[in-house]
Amino acid sequence: MTTIAEVPESMRCSVLRAAGELEVQRRPVPRPGPREVLVRVAAVGTCGSDVHYFRHGRIGDFVLREPMVLGHEPSGLIVGVGESVDARRIGERVSLEPGVPCRRCRYCHTGAYNLCPDMVFFATPPVDGAFAEYVTIADDFAHPVPEHVSDDVAALLEPLSVALWANHRAGTGVGSRVLVAGAGPIGLLVAQVAAVQGAAEVVVSDPDPARAALARDFGATDVVAPGAGVSGVDAFVDCSGVPAAVLGGLPAVRPGGAAVLVGMGADEMTLPVSMLQSREITLTGTFRYANTWPTAVRMAASGAVDLGRLVTGHVDLDHVGDALSPDASQVKVVVRP
Amino acid sequence: MTTIAEVPESMRCSVLRAAGELEVQRRPVPRPGPREVLVRVAAVGTCGSDVHYFRHGRIGDFVLREPMVLGHEPSGLIVGVGESVDARRIGERVSLEPGVPCRRCRYCHTGAYNLCPDMVFFATPPVDGAFAEYVTIADDFAHPVPEHVSDDVAALLEPLSVALWANHRAGTGVGSRVLVAGAGPIGLLVAQVAAVQGAAEVVVSDPDPARAALARDFGATDVVAPGAGVSGVDAFVDCSGVPAAVLGGLPAVRPGGAAVLVGMGADEMTLPVSMLQSREITLTGTFRYANTWPTAVRMAASGAVDLGRLVTGHVDLDHVGDALSPDASQVKVVVRP
Amino acid sequence: MTTIAEVPESMRCSVLRAAGELEVQRRPVPRPGPREVLVRVAAVGTCGSDVHYFRHGRIGDFVLREPMVLGHEPSGLIVGVGESVDARRIGERVSLEPGVPCRRCRYCHTGAYNLCPDMVFFATPPVDGAFAEYVTIADDFAHPVPEHVSDDVAALLEPLSVALWANHRAGTGVGSRVLVAGAGPIGLLVAQVAAVQGAAEVVVSDPDPARAALARDFGATDVVAPGAGVSGVDAFVDCSGVPAAVLGGLPAVRPGGAAVLVGMGADEMTLPVSMLQSREITLTGTFRYANTWPTAVRMAASGAVDLGRLVTGHVDLDHVGDALSPDASQVKVVVRP
Amino acid sequence: MTTIAEVPESMRCSVLRAAGELEVQRRPVPRPGPREVLVRVAAVGTCGSDVHYFRHGRIGDFVLREPMVLGHEPSGLIVGVGESVDARRIGERVSLEPGVPCRRCRYCHTGAYNLCPDMVFFATPPVDGAFAEYVTIADDFAHPVPEHVSDDVAALLEPLSVALWANHRAGTGVGSRVLVAGAGPIGLLVAQVAAVQGAAEVVVSDPDPARAALARDFGATDVVAPGAGVSGVDAFVDCSGVPAAVLGGLPAVRPGGAAVLVGMGADEMTLPVSMLQSREITLTGTFRYANTWPTAVRMAASGAVDLGRLVTGHVDLDHVGDALSPDASQVKVVVRP
Repeated sequence: MTTIAEVPESMRCSVLRAAGELEVQRRPVPRPGPREVLVRVAAVGTCGSDVHYFRHGRIGDFVLREPMVLGHEPSGLIVGVGESVDARRIGERVSLEPGVPCRRCRYCHTGAYNLCPDMVFFATPPVDGAFAEYVTIADDFAHPVPEHVSDDVAALLEPLSVALWANHRAGTGVGSRVLVAGAGPIGLLVAQVAAVQGAAEVVVSDPDPARAALARDFGATDVVAPGAGVSGVDAFVDCSGVPAAVLGGLPAVRPGGAAVLVGMGADEMTLPVSMLQSREITLTGTFRYANTWPTAVRMAASGAVDLGRLVTGHVDLDHVGDALSPDASQVKVVVRP
Repeated sequence: MTTIAEVPESMRCSVLRAAGELEVQRRPVPRPGPREVLVRVAAVGTCGSDVHYFRHGRIGDFVLREPMVLGHEPSGLIVGVGESVDARRIGERVSLEPGVPCRRCRYCHTGAYNLCPDMVFFATPPVDGAFAEYVTIADDFAHPVPEHVSDDVAALLEPLSVALWANHRAGTGVGSRVLVAGAGPIGLLVAQVAAVQGAAEVVVSDPDPARAALARDFGATDVVAPGAGVSGVDAFVDCSGVPAAVLGGLPAVRPGGAAVLVGMGADEMTLPVSMLQSREITLTGTFRYANTWPTAVRMAASGAVDLGRLVTGHVDLDHVGDALSPDASQVKVVVRP
Repeated sequence: MTTIAEVPESMRCSVLRAAGELEVQRRPVPRPGPREVLVRVAAVGTCGSDVHYFRHGRIGDFVLREPMVLGHEPSGLIVGVGESVDARRIGERVSLEPGVPCRRCRYCHTGAYNLCPDMVFFATPPVDGAFAEYVTIADDFAHPVPEHVSDDVAALLEPLSVALWANHRAGTGVGSRVLVAGAGPIGLLVAQVAAVQGAAEVVVSDPDPARAALARDFGATDVVAPGAGVSGVDAFVDCSGVPAAVLGGLPAVRPGGAAVLVGMGADEMTLPVSMLQSREITLTGTFRYANTWPTAVRMAASGAVDLGRLVTGHVDLDHVGDALSPDASQVKVVVRP
Repeated sequence: MTTIAEVPESMRCSVLRAAGELEVQRRPVPRPGPREVLVRVAAVGTCGSDVHYFRHGRIGDFVLREPMVLGHEPSGLIVGVGESVDARRIGERVSLEPGVPCRRCRYCHTGAYNLCPDMVFFATPPVDGAFAEYVTIADDFAHPVPEHVSDDVAALLEPLSVALWANHRAGTGVGSRVLVAGAGPIGLLVAQVAAVQGAAEVVVSDPDPARAALARDFGATDVVAPGAGVSGVDAFVDCSGVPAAVLGGLPAVRPGGAAVLVGMGADEMTLPVSMLQSREITLTGTFRYANTWPTAVRMAASGAVDLGRLVTGHVDLDHVGDALSPDASQVKVVVRP
């Protein structure tokens, strides 16, 4: 049985019609299908990929072919449940994991659901995102958060998940030495998660000294200019997507260490493969995340990470374009529908 | 070439002649062999196994057959080097890893050197320990510590290593839920290491409320009486050696979780094997540690763990017997030769 | 859209009314739900658990409270598809993985779906099994098999999966030395899978010399009487469920090795925990399997394992009781509805 | 005590004086140091790196600066033992693991001794190799082989180790699908080891159809031309060192799979990093091997791999130059001092 709390028939949402063209439209409030929940959106973080779609209308092979709602870092309140969902979930505050996999392929069966080829992911063409008053999602991808976790923080469990996954892939552990390139929101969170995991050294590099300095507040034990002589780290995590940063970071990795490319940049890079070989360095990337929300919720609840201070501004649905044209002083702007 | 700083010809050491019989003797200062260092001992932690040898003259199959020096948690100063060791190491402050493996067996070759059958371990019959003014050890098992790490803390990297190894075997990681039984020195350190690794919940149980309460100062998020209704933990680490504690802890482990027995107790226990099977719980123990010192040094150097406050007293070589007869209020007594 | 090939309205099935009471009944042919397939059953292996339910009406906490169809090792032909399943699957020969998990819990999300608490498993009260002419199952748990894989072999991918999972949990790999206790169907398959994985030594013990001898045909490199002096194995896999066999096998495990309890036996066992501790042996069990079918299908297709020769007899639905009262000479009896 | 069987005072060895200049010289028979054995060399495989040194006088940063003996795939007979080695080892037939690590660095301590920066490796400047009548080596790197393993096969445990390590790094297991580029000796052995480990598909590509065809005899389930449309493999192992082969193989790897570069080729390659990222492919290389000999010996002893048929010719010390100028029909030439 579907149960819906009192909601209006239509809602406002911010629609990207083409590169650079946002428009607030009215659309019907969606109806939760079986095993889905209806969520009134409270906060949505803006992300580099939203900015990229706004500017270019595409990211690589993902091309905007018809109007689409952006936003994939939402939190909110459950206001309705579809068939087979316990109606007592209405009233629950939740953080949404914005990609729902098929549950039936080899990747889903083995727990690597981030690699599911049939993933339905918010704000990835042609799937609408969360810059809207209401969204629906599979019940198990709406993760409850405790009362003392704010809407903003609940929204930012998404970038926190990116950082958890990056550290997972990097093998960060107690005593690790980690180099992070790029002190944007993801780099800062990667540093912070590394510190939470007991990394002994977390070195952050960024060409912008102000950003780099910010990293100290997020657990970095040292901040360096790109290319500074770091060496012997267990893992290098690139959060810049800049080829020069990648090439600068690789030699810092000790034999047997890992290099993880989180930032998307060039399609191709010329890499020092003989160095990777003779040092048996493992090079890989990250694609979204899997099974990070339970941990992210606990970290936010305990205050182990400081997500709130990433937020440098808020906008409403009418000003999403401003949020998607950030200046350098902005770290993370949150949309509040 | 062997190089020795000015040292006396003989030294004092505390010798266990038989159960309950300690005697301070003079012996020649040992001479470092090839690839060994000579260390003037600064501090030696006392451990439950020292207490056990003192009381019973044996631990299981390890039987005191001739007089032996106890003590296996030493720190000190390098005052001499044997052949093939850089003489510049003289003057280095070090924490000693008290077991030196053979380096040639399958366990040594694969990094599991704690399982080396030919391990030479301080204060394990017939090998003398460190309740002495000087000891020698293989150069790579004398780990340098920074200036700001105290002698006491450097000594306690040994129990910290036990705790690191226990968490390693338990698979503790960011977001983990861990139950620790027993709030003695090892249990407290296991809790603290779990917290440093980002565990979301660290529950400690102990029948003694005072000890249990102490656990809160060491990172425990919750303190319970044994048998209290904890459930769904990722790992249960027994540091009590008490069968009732083990049986009380196992049902708390979630399917797929781990149970790690650190405390030595009964040779045999009657265990709920069908529960272990149907939940696919992994039960194992720990035997010493391997490759923990580099991390332990970093943790002590950064202040990530609070080893100093474990120390509740000091004695000199003439009062080792007092240290090995602790009352319940003692956590860790350190011998200063 | 649901599409069903020509099937009768009712079918025959073998119903266990109570311990020892089997009855062939007519029931309606089930109808595939959304994302399900309808399968005409070709062959169903009989298993120790079927025998146990037939004899005792229960296995541990799983109690037969109302009549139930047994059988959980089925193969067959897809003759109908439910909504959202490609109708071209009709005509496909399949091996059925008999437990369908919830797809939404932490265990399903992480790939450990065998631990899903809401698993719906054939022939586990109150879920009916496959001693019937037709069954339905989730489309992704009906695994296609090539033409040259017989119905019997396709059915026996279920015990092969048990063996794959046991070896997975045991960490069997190239060069491993493995001891298997119990030369029943599971023990034989565990031995065979170990050999396929490149194990260097596969020793099988069984009190029955004839069964043990059979093991040689299934890849055992050596066959011994229980308690014979095997030592230093990397893994011990108990497929007997007999406490004496478990206690006899544990001392054979090398330090750092694994003991895996596959056979269900006593609820409790008195185990040598101090030996497990000082050797850091990992003791665990297996509960069903996860993600084994893709590999099992490939192994059957390539002939890497010899499943057909496990089959020592066939019965029809009217003689299921005979199959569930096997004599010692039987290895595996297959029901052909 | 050092014990030496009757050996001459001098021996013959083949010395590379400069690129292209080999000379047979007389040198004193070496004397085993403490914990070393003296081995009369029976057979030495020739390897691509020997050929490379012979042609170019260098491999990357390793430059021949003074005359050196080549050869690092030796087998032989122990004819003397140094101090602390059991004299009963005299008479033992052995396969030599040609790199002896320092045993004291972090890599040696953790079992990753192939990454030891102080490794002493046969035939790597300035360390002499085994194209000589006698060599010495650490006792634990002289691995005994059973009587029925021939000298040639015992020598070829070195390339077998390369193949074991490559499959280890690739994560090959039962049911794996593996693509191997390059059907030289290493590629053939990588394929064969994959098959021994239970890989379900082992596809080998090589531009030379004759070499590729040979792969079928070594366990390949399929042989293709480079660039043929293989896809969805769990691991791609490049044994060619040819950039085009690497670029052709990477797209064949499934999401979450591995690419392992064994062949040394260009220092740098332009790689499709965005594909590695979005598929979370793990790219790494291999550098020698660690802990492979025990398994290699067992595999050779059981006949699981067919090393003998790799040998296409033999030469004596006077004809090493011929062995190092192989024509395309040669697979592996063995030197018999």
